[in-house]
Amino acid sequence: MRVARVEARERILRAATKTLAELGFARTTARAIADTGGFAPGVIYYHFADLDDLFAATVEFTSQARLARYRAETDGLTSAAELITRLRALFAEDRAEGHVAAVQELVAAAASSPRLAEQVRAAVEIWRSFAETLIGRFVASTPFAGLVPVSELATAAVAGYLGLEMLSHLHADPTPHEALFDAAHNFAAILDSLH
Amino acid sequence: MRVARVEARERILRAATKTLAELGFARTTARAIADTGGFAPGVIYYHFADLDDLFAATVEFTSQARLARYRAETDGLTSAAELITRLRALFAEDRAEGHVAAVQELVAAAASSPRLAEQVRAAVEIWRSFAETLIGRFVASTPFAGLVPVSELATAAVAGYLGLEMLSHLHADPTPHEALFDAAHNFAAILDSLH
Repeated sequence: MRVARVEARERILRAATKTLAELGFARTTARAIADTGGFAPGVIYYHFADLDDLFAATVEFTSQARLARYRAETDGLTSAAELITRLRALFAEDRAEGHVAAVQELVAAAASSPRLAEQVRAAVEIWRSFAETLIGRFVASTPFAGLVPVSELATAAVAGYLGLEMLSHLHADPTPHEALFDAAHNFAAILDSLH
Repeated sequence: MRVARVEARERILRAATKTLAELGFARTTARAIADTGGFAPGVIYYHFADLDDLFAATVEFTSQARLARYRAETDGLTSAAELITRLRALFAEDRAEGHVAAVQELVAAAASSPRLAEQVRAAVEIWRSFAETLIGRFVASTPFAGLVPVSELATAAVAGYLGLEMLSHLHADPTPHEALFDAAHNFAAILDSLH
């Protein structure tokens, strides 16, 4: 029963993510989410107090799910070039599954919801911290250790990632971020050669 | 008469920008825009076919206005450290006037409007091209000329800028981007010393 409840909740969260990514925040009503997930709109209110509550939970759900994937793919890696290859694949997953697109809709919506803003802020901080650990680990093995402002680079990385997702959505052709990953891969290969 | 019409149109565009930044896309109705600007909602439909038309024009208007400021502040600059100082001030203006916040709302809204998506795409390309020229000019006078992938860096810069704006909105305290500008300024001072 407990398990069934968790599963039902996750089904709603996945439907909310998909609907936000596909229709945008303004059109993500309880009816639209229910249509996406194939359940009755009333089910939402059995698990969440209201849509604001559901949206806040969606930020946490999608962020945790992706972070688990990012950790699994980057743990123990020592080659910067391999890291870029993995990040490129993870970025493609984010795009395909609509995770970051959904978060972007919620970031925009956070302009009018302090509660949502707080949830997004917490999620961003978790990602910034993940990026800081990852960048710190790679910089430590290069001649630049101690010279690179790791915390600021982590902020820039999270900002760049969100912005890149935003840009890649606007383009029918997926070129802009592909060229960027190519350039990053070249740079990473140089970094690897400095060990 | 012609001038009065242009002024009335700009007044609506400024009101739309402000409303999007303050209330978010979902709450930016004709009534809300009219309230912000202090005119009757009907005035909007004298100058624009519908809200979609107004939003597309808002992207172009705000982008052109800011680009003119960015060009004026960066033309002829040769010091990278001074460039970072100017960009920091321009970023503060963007935040205060709600320009990028408005565009972000429209980028999110573009998920459900192909016409808006096209307009945002065109504006992003203009900024990418501006960033490419600016970065190319600064890189040309360093030992890295020819080694730096200027076009990809320009994409990264525009993505990072949009993402940073997004993040800085979520924070009550404006620290994250301040620390990043500090780090960029230090790096720029090193670049300047290599001339």
